[in-house]
Amino acid sequence: MSKPILIVGGGPAGLAAASALSGIGQAAVLVEKEPRLGGAPILSGYAKLVPSGEWAKDAIGGMVSRVEANPLVKRHTGCTVTEFTGEPGAFRARLSNGTTLDVGAAILCTGFTHFDSVNKPEWGFGTYPDVVTTTQVEQMISSGKGIRCPSDGRKPERVAILLCVGSRDRQIGREWCSKICCTVSCNIAMEIREELPGCHVYIYYMDIRTFGLYETNYYWRSQEEFKVKYIKARIAEVTSDGQKLIVKGEDTLVKRPITIPFDMVVHAIGMDPNVDNKRLSSVFGIELQQQGFVGKASSYASLGETSRRGVFVAGAATGPETIDDSIAQGKAAAIAAFALVGGAAAVARVA
Amino acid sequence: MSKPILIVGGGPAGLAAASALSGIGQAAVLVEKEPRLGGAPILSGYAKLVPSGEWAKDAIGGMVSRVEANPLVKRHTGCTVTEFTGEPGAFRARLSNGTTLDVGAAILCTGFTHFDSVNKPEWGFGTYPDVVTTTQVEQMISSGKGIRCPSDGRKPERVAILLCVGSRDRQIGREWCSKICCTVSCNIAMEIREELPGCHVYIYYMDIRTFGLYETNYYWRSQEEFKVKYIKARIAEVTSDGQKLIVKGEDTLVKRPITIPFDMVVHAIGMDPNVDNKRLSSVFGIELQQQGFVGKASSYASLGETSRRGVFVAGAATGPETIDDSIAQGKAAAIAAFALVGGAAAVARVA
Repeated sequence: MSKPILIVGGGPAGLAAASALSGIGQAAVLVEKEPRLGGAPILSGYAKLVPSGEWAKDAIGGMVSRVEANPLVKRHTGCTVTEFTGEPGAFRARLSNGTTLDVGAAILCTGFTHFDSVNKPEWGFGTYPDVVTTTQVEQMISSGKGIRCPSDGRKPERVAILLCVGSRDRQIGREWCSKICCTVSCNIAMEIREELPGCHVYIYYMDIRTFGLYETNYYWRSQEEFKVKYIKARIAEVTSDGQKLIVKGEDTLVKRPITIPFDMVVHAIGMDPNVDNKRLSSVFGIELQQQGFVGKASSYASLGETSRRGVFVAGAATGPETIDDSIAQGKAAAIAAFALVGGAAAVARVA
Repeated sequence: MSKPILIVGGGPAGLAAASALSGIGQAAVLVEKEPRLGGAPILSGYAKLVPSGEWAKDAIGGMVSRVEANPLVKRHTGCTVTEFTGEPGAFRARLSNGTTLDVGAAILCTGFTHFDSVNKPEWGFGTYPDVVTTTQVEQMISSGKGIRCPSDGRKPERVAILLCVGSRDRQIGREWCSKICCTVSCNIAMEIREELPGCHVYIYYMDIRTFGLYETNYYWRSQEEFKVKYIKARIAEVTSDGQKLIVKGEDTLVKRPITIPFDMVVHAIGMDPNVDNKRLSSVFGIELQQQGFVGKASSYASLGETSRRGVFVAGAATGPETIDDSIAQGKAAAIAAFALVGGAAAVARVA
């Protein structure tokens, strides 16, 4: 039997890779640094996901349950890889829990780290309790508690969602676009309007990036069916008059300054490179991109490969990514890794 | 030996699926309606691809050569599937060339059809020879002939690229965003500026959707390194004063009408559903989405599945898609199809 394939990270990409490998009879070992599997959608308590509309706890939670019940997938949680040596087909990994694994290949599905809004202090997070992040709104929804102002528990009557917090922002060293926050924000805006039909929801944007078929299902639907309002603006700061939050900036379409009161302001936070990427780079001997995401081959013939042969990468580890493409990339890396360890022939030889 | 897997469509997704399957020892049969493999990048003569920067003829051409040299991939070109019956694991496909195939599963990688700019007549395509499409500019570059005005062969001094031609346009029944035309246009603009450093290139946009890491490599690089100019505008029409093309519309940031002369106007054309989708839907017994793209499962657990079990789908068949994600989806569908036909165990049983 060919050696198992090591998968690092138990979010959507890693779960997809593990399921795909076990589905074709190939053993895998999944190592997750957190005590639970599921990645950001589970650990951060996401609500309904884009674009499937499934609840995270059902969709990604279901992937977790299936992996946990799968005898072909060994799991090590609360655990990291501390050493990775050897050659393609014959790697050896040491884990922080003392385990040593002989594996044929590795797939890094190590995801991203949410941008921490305290790094954008002029937009009020950390100063005003009713300035929250998209992740916090997801938690309000998924917990069943509903959309409430953290300061006093009231239902907000006016909510502003500010896009590109920690994205497209050179001032704070984050030039990239986080790809999915526009669509996630459209989705959250609809959820707020559904729960609180009297609440006015405004989205402040630079460019609305509801690419592909998201255009209809999120951008137009949120406006036409849910009456969400979109304002192209440059936001300067979020302050308070003691009663309301005040969003100040410039409406870039009418070229006028705006000063608008809200009950709640939501930061659509972006995706940072995983904070562990430097350590991962060192342990696995792989290169990072200039922004700090895991480097991937640019050639179409070797998509999903890192700078080290036999070490693959999938999902948001390589840059901001959607859940469905993370899943596709996890499966794509799985078949590439399976080919490397010998494919069906290797299984056949020992069968 | 398990039955081969049928792949319909020989573009990036189909080639990736075929390579991935053969790489793990699984036979595939690739059916392509055109006389040659390669899909849009080869058949439409694309130049340097986004985001790999590779020439289409090298990158996708290389994938074609490897598939053509691969004994595990049988090919039928200039040929369509006319009948598809049976059950998962035991389908029978009849081809227009008279062949009958017994296959275990099918993957539809049938791609898209370029929007035909004559359906947007007020923007001058078909009326003025120097109004061209992004595909035509790609051909000018990939053929080595360079960027020239079709009317008289001169080098243009001023080029306008109009985004969202056949996208985000309800007037002509195409509400979706075509996802990659913004980034492709940034890329083409840089190519024009590289060949003709004296040429001024303007991009007229609604929203610039250079999502994820494209933001740095295309949007900012095109402005800072290549001096491409971006104007947020609503274009009303493209006319001519007899010497120059005239782009008329409104600059939506300064709320002023614009009337600007150009030597060449480029339509950034979008992705329509494949014109054959109704026939495909009927032959394979699968549902289409409301826009006419192939329907895909919305659940993360069954991504890449169609409404018919055992028939998978990947790439731009399901909606506007990038080449790299089409490739990832092709491979993801491959491993799912391989699992369906029995995975490694099935190969092992008969080995």
